Amino acid sequence: IIGSAIAKAEDSLPSWNSGPAKQSIVAFVDRVTQKQSPDYVEPTDRIAVFDNDGTLWPEAPIPFQAAFAFDEVKRRVPKEPTLAADPMVQAVLQGDIGKLIEGKHHDGLLKVMAITHAGMSTDEFATSVSDWLESAEHPRFKKAYSDLTYQPMQELLDYLRANGFKCFIVSGGGADFMRVWSERVYGIPAENVVGSTGQAKYEMRDGKPQLIKTLDHLFVDDKEGKPVGIHQFIGRRPIACFGNSDGDQAMLEYTTIDNPLPSFGLIVHHTDVEREYAYDKKPSSSGKLTTALEAASKRGWTVVDMKSDWVRVFRGSGSE
Amino acid sequence: IIGSAIAKAEDSLPSWNSGPAKQSIVAFVDRVTQKQSPDYVEPTDRIAVFDNDGTLWPEAPIPFQAAFAFDEVKRRVPKEPTLAADPMVQAVLQGDIGKLIEGKHHDGLLKVMAITHAGMSTDEFATSVSDWLESAEHPRFKKAYSDLTYQPMQELLDYLRANGFKCFIVSGGGADFMRVWSERVYGIPAENVVGSTGQAKYEMRDGKPQLIKTLDHLFVDDKEGKPVGIHQFIGRRPIACFGNSDGDQAMLEYTTIDNPLPSFGLIVHHTDVEREYAYDKKPSSSGKLTTALEAASKRGWTVVDMKSDWVRVFRGSGSE
Ligand SMILES: [Ca+2]
Ligand SMILES: [Ca+2]
Repeated sequence: IIGSAIAKAEDSLPSWNSGPAKQSIVAFVDRVTQKQSPDYVEPTDRIAVFDNDGTLWPEAPIPFQAAFAFDEVKRRVPKEPTLAADPMVQAVLQGDIGKLIEGKHHDGLLKVMAITHAGMSTDEFATSVSDWLESAEHPRFKKAYSDLTYQPMQELLDYLRANGFKCFIVSGGGADFMRVWSERVYGIPAENVVGSTGQAKYEMRDGKPQLIKTLDHLFVDDKEGKPVGIHQFIGRRPIACFGNSDGDQAMLEYTTIDNPLPSFGLIVHHTDVEREYAYDKKPSSSGKLTTALEAASKRGWTVVDMKSDWVRVFRGSGSE
Repeated sequence: IIGSAIAKAEDSLPSWNSGPAKQSIVAFVDRVTQKQSPDYVEPTDRIAVFDNDGTLWPEAPIPFQAAFAFDEVKRRVPKEPTLAADPMVQAVLQGDIGKLIEGKHHDGLLKVMAITHAGMSTDEFATSVSDWLESAEHPRFKKAYSDLTYQPMQELLDYLRANGFKCFIVSGGGADFMRVWSERVYGIPAENVVGSTGQAKYEMRDGKPQLIKTLDHLFVDDKEGKPVGIHQFIGRRPIACFGNSDGDQAMLEYTTIDNPLPSFGLIVHHTDVEREYAYDKKPSSSGKLTTALEAASKRGWTVVDMKSDWVRVFRGSGSE
């Protein structure tokens, strides 16, 4: 049975090389979806959660949402000259990331977030994200950011959905940022996106309902925040969890330790300096991976070796 | 076309008497789902939101979640004698609702909520809700609370889902309370329930992941909180909204004013003192309906007259 399921899955996961990573995925899906399996799980409980940056698309040289924020500052400065007076805006204009991340709370980055992610209506924000995504290009790969999603992970999303799973993004990124394109890019509708959020403010402006973005009651959907966000937004424990860094460790543990249902955890390890990036302990951007990698063997999590496990990396590309 | 659609809908909505309320529902669903309609809406955008208390099930003589909280206090007092020393617990034991709602912030009720809705794990809480729902009985109707959902609204949920709508609960009630039974009772899975929430705390206890309920960062999903919650949890503007009180006015407005898509609003007016309850300006429990009822004609919202529009009221009953 497992042999034939793997053969079937070859069609569903063509960008995955044969090997233990692919086998573990197929064996788990099989185990929870075959009616006669003692570990069968009802479709309604087949909740799968995916980190985004570094798991579904890259996070280097900087997370794509940070690229959006910096581009947005640059776009607005000519129209809003008072902005240019801000030293943190100057740091953006000069590409001085060091200055932006100075201090315990990265005050510069917070300032840039406040300028680019608050004070406008949710519709205005969605338009600016959408416009940016259409025009911006990744500095190394010279493609639209939305063409840089990982083809093997896209196949995995499709494969899980075809097997009755409900797939959610659970990311430290902004929910409002991701929801603009998550359905088009991943087939994940807005309501299945859990991310960091500020509490919007509801107002009638000129008789029209508006939600104004704020950074109030900021919920940071990272580390221990991920299980908290999963509970708050999804309301159930997932049975499958996919991440790439220590920021995902808590949700991997929440998914796989003491879960009354069978469960599966997977870490994407960036090992491919040629086709993408190679990092773990010392990422140049986000994505530090140390304790979660250590925990993987103890917990039985699958570790994907990007270089050897993936036939190709990006969706928007031929075979690389 | 409308004639035949209504005839077809007769099968889907048998507990609705013919009349303008039913007609308006069918006409709207028709308008947004027929491919050739100029107002056709893609399935992914067919978001429908439902208030719960007073819209999908009763809210008298007290909201069912309050009944749970009071029963829970009574259940725990014999095992936790220190509880009995609390004057607000005494008020519960004596049925002194007046004392519980004294003061601007209803300190007594808040105390009862803190005792019954925080400090335990989310799993423990779910078990206590589930146990309660199995054993508790409505004081007037002498049935399990979950048998008292409104049959016409259940048919409406089914009818909308059959027409490609995604149905969500958006309620001032606690999300953790509703999610225990929403799928079984309404076919609405946990992840489609938006409600009031405190931020749970993630911990490892004896090596096992636990989410401990708290009242921290309490989000109250009522009035202006409803559009805020819709944006935060669903991420898109609904095209159909169903409520029964002024607490739903903001989400009715958010759904129907200046929406780029066609939209529909509906208010359930409790007019049936025989079969259920009759109230608007002066409810004995929650559910005050004044400004939203005034706004209905201006906004084109359908007002359901429970007495004349509904053939029967409750799901768990014969034809009454
Ligand atoms: Ca990541
Ligand atoms: Ca209500």
